[in-house]
Amino acid sequence: MAGVRVQALYDFAGEPGTAELSITAGEVLTVTRQNVGEGWWEGVNQAGQTGLFPAAYVEAYEGGDYWDDEWDDDSEGGGTQSSMQANNSAYSSGQVLPKSGSIGDISSVGKPDGKGTVGRKNFNRFTTFVKSGGESYILGTVKVSVREEDKVYIFETESGIVWNPITEPYMCMVASPKKESKLKGLKSFIAYQLTPTFNNIQVSRRYKHFDWLHERLEEKFSLIPIPPLPDKQISGRYEEQFIEHRRAQLQAFVNSVCRHPVLSRCEVWQHFMTCTDEKRWKAGKRKAEKDELVGANYFITLQAPERQLDITHIEQETEKCSKFIHGMDGAVKNLMATAVDQTKKHQGPYKREYQRIGHAFSALGLAFREDDSSDNARRNLTEAIRVTGDTYHEIGKLFEEQPKLDWEPLGDVLHLYKGIISSFPDILTVHKGSLQKRRECEKLASDHKMEASQLSEVARRTDIISYALLAEINHFHTERAVDFKQAMQNYLKEQITFYQKIVDKLQDALRMYD
Amino acid sequence: MAGVRVQALYDFAGEPGTAELSITAGEVLTVTRQNVGEGWWEGVNQAGQTGLFPAAYVEAYEGGDYWDDEWDDDSEGGGTQSSMQANNSAYSSGQVLPKSGSIGDISSVGKPDGKGTVGRKNFNRFTTFVKSGGESYILGTVKVSVREEDKVYIFETESGIVWNPITEPYMCMVASPKKESKLKGLKSFIAYQLTPTFNNIQVSRRYKHFDWLHERLEEKFSLIPIPPLPDKQISGRYEEQFIEHRRAQLQAFVNSVCRHPVLSRCEVWQHFMTCTDEKRWKAGKRKAEKDELVGANYFITLQAPERQLDITHIEQETEKCSKFIHGMDGAVKNLMATAVDQTKKHQGPYKREYQRIGHAFSALGLAFREDDSSDNARRNLTEAIRVTGDTYHEIGKLFEEQPKLDWEPLGDVLHLYKGIISSFPDILTVHKGSLQKRRECEKLASDHKMEASQLSEVARRTDIISYALLAEINHFHTERAVDFKQAMQNYLKEQITFYQKIVDKLQDALRMYD
Repeated sequence: MAGVRVQALYDFAGEPGTAELSITAGEVLTVTRQNVGEGWWEGVNQAGQTGLFPAAYVEAYEGGDYWDDEWDDDSEGGGTQSSMQANNSAYSSGQVLPKSGSIGDISSVGKPDGKGTVGRKNFNRFTTFVKSGGESYILGTVKVSVREEDKVYIFETESGIVWNPITEPYMCMVASPKKESKLKGLKSFIAYQLTPTFNNIQVSRRYKHFDWLHERLEEKFSLIPIPPLPDKQISGRYEEQFIEHRRAQLQAFVNSVCRHPVLSRCEVWQHFMTCTDEKRWKAGKRKAEKDELVGANYFITLQAPERQLDITHIEQETEKCSKFIHGMDGAVKNLMATAVDQTKKHQGPYKREYQRIGHAFSALGLAFREDDSSDNARRNLTEAIRVTGDTYHEIGKLFEEQPKLDWEPLGDVLHLYKGIISSFPDILTVHKGSLQKRRECEKLASDHKMEASQLSEVARRTDIISYALLAEINHFHTERAVDFKQAMQNYLKEQITFYQKIVDKLQDALRMYD
Repeated sequence: MAGVRVQALYDFAGEPGTAELSITAGEVLTVTRQNVGEGWWEGVNQAGQTGLFPAAYVEAYEGGDYWDDEWDDDSEGGGTQSSMQANNSAYSSGQVLPKSGSIGDISSVGKPDGKGTVGRKNFNRFTTFVKSGGESYILGTVKVSVREEDKVYIFETESGIVWNPITEPYMCMVASPKKESKLKGLKSFIAYQLTPTFNNIQVSRRYKHFDWLHERLEEKFSLIPIPPLPDKQISGRYEEQFIEHRRAQLQAFVNSVCRHPVLSRCEVWQHFMTCTDEKRWKAGKRKAEKDELVGANYFITLQAPERQLDITHIEQETEKCSKFIHGMDGAVKNLMATAVDQTKKHQGPYKREYQRIGHAFSALGLAFREDDSSDNARRNLTEAIRVTGDTYHEIGKLFEEQPKLDWEPLGDVLHLYKGIISSFPDILTVHKGSLQKRRECEKLASDHKMEASQLSEVARRTDIISYALLAEINHFHTERAVDFKQAMQNYLKEQITFYQKIVDKLQDALRMYD
């Protein structure tokens, strides 16, 4: 826990002759002990004095605005052993301590505008494709050497054209620390604990680390829709429910990457998911940012079957995909709007309606209580009506709590696919661009401005791009079937449990009338 | 069916040389045959010509506005065998034909203002009490002879002061005829079939007969809250659901009368429920309208225990009753408003919300259907999502249909008690008036302006009124406990069935994903 830095919010005058430490608003301290009790922490000031101060008088020292700051300073190494331990112990004790950042080292590798990705529009793959030398690849002028381990294989199987299937499937669990109430008002960050199933070693990652990873993946894979991260949200981001929801959404992102034959094996993701050493983390980060095999260059890593593809067939397939994506886009957005709307209605009007019913019954029970008769049947009826009122009040609460069990998880899958779907038009444009280039070369060849052998190589390379697209479309359909089946099953199961709970509560109320 | 009269709504020119009859708007015809087919009826006009005309061109000829007309003309005898048969046969063939009334014989016995009871304010019992000689009764100047069979006994038992309990309980079933759709647009009346359990002989009564009965009961019983009839309603009164609902409300009225120790035995009710002969019906009707034992005169039929009552205690009891009634009134009105509101919400927004969810799932299933893969798992998922969409659509329909199973029957009981409760203030005022008169007499006696023996008789007679009120309060509490217990049990059972149906439907949908 050593090294966690906090900044004093207010002056505090320590009682002389005690262990208390006087602090001045704005002063930065390093916390040395948290488990002092009764709202006190132990820390050391910049003058080297150690003592106790009220935890409520300090906030996390971030050294800059949370969302806009750069993070590739040394002290912020995403996966250092020390930060991992700090977060682990904080997690186990139910506390979260902020990790300080320093203002000094603001580099802007990969972010030439000096801003984060907040508010950035959908990454334009086609632009990247062109910029990164899409033409050069097709014309065969890209000269980058590909190591064997970077090669990506595409196969033709009975179930169509596929990425080299995952042979050793794994998952990566995303766990979320909780925030303790005694830290209320203290600015802090949330670090998510990632634990891959193949090594069971936990690493700690902040949202902005995910954001960086996402950008690397989008740059690198022109033909693969990268699953989206949860939407950025500033307000209320420390509320328990928000943190848990974001965790679930990050888990969905991680699951989607882990199950992708290409993404799950790529170096930057492996690095992100496993690196626990600060130095190696920084090195891996810089390597990823300098990766040459991104955009169109990435295509030279693709190893596709030799069979020549029929362009007409390919165009039919991509047209079908485009149509499917368009239809699914509308359906997903509609269902998402329904999920948001139903969530609001459950938490507002539905809850109020049931509680209004409850109130009406309670009022009747209350009116009947004016009857002071000793008649047991009458007294029992009064009590039963009162219980009925309470029951509908509780059903109102069930309505309020329900969406996070059914609509929210379904909404997360919809969010995932909304992001994936939104990437497809660009991907299809990249592919179309390659076919366009091929046609230009065919024209050149028929005008005898290009050698037949060169055209044949161009055709081969556009075929490789088509193979990759077909493999990705295939993967997409397999995944969306699995994801939606599971999402629908979960949704319906939770709905069944919900209405069953109502039935049970009403049966309890009914029994009161016997 | 001969003799049923209709009035032409529009001109119709019969094709010369065919069986068609030309009719003129406003003309009154007598229907001779209905089962002609294809929308045609056979009838005879006032000139004696017979022929066919379109059934849709005529409406029932009532000979006056339906709700305002008087009905004690001979042709409208409520319980004649012939009208009963006509209605029975209409019922068995699923048809209802209107019974004509004639304009001629408008007598206004019991309705001095010449209007029906539509819009009439709550019957003012106290005024009736005073008008009918409340003072005379208390002063002992009423000289009406009481037959033994008219005497009403009040007893003091372990469970308090009670009306002479019912020794031979019975019920009276109210059955409702249905209206056939080919008569749509044709003005007609609904006759309800009443069958007492003690003789199993069916009689036919229209709403206005019930209205007449209700007026007789309110005139006669100053201290008994007469259960209310269903509210009068003009619009849509022939819709199937409305007719069934009104039947249920009339059944509630009838049940309440049958279970009342005094009302269930009274002559006018017995007459109403059992008379099948037209002549006897009319005689009974006139006798009831000339009944001398109404209002305050009715009190001389009361036979109460000899024990003198403690006025302070009586005042405490009536005060408690007044407070209880006031509290129950608010609670009942609140619950009724909730019932009306929930009914509307089930039939409108709730239904729409569930169907919107269904639509969102259906749209997703439709989008997935664009995938023409032969993969069974994918095709099965698409189908399962489609079924899920249908399921929520059906749940929407369940919501729409639910209120008539739970809120409406509960609403009927609430309607019944709203009416009963609204009578209590008048009843308590009648009682207060008698105590007031007694105090005046005590004053007179202490001023030696009244004989002690006469005061003692006054006290005895006010005691009798108090005995009757206490018996009625006792009956009220017993009944409302029974009624509300049953109503709440029914409501909860229907709610349980409803939510269980949703659970079952969702489980069916979930199984589709296996």
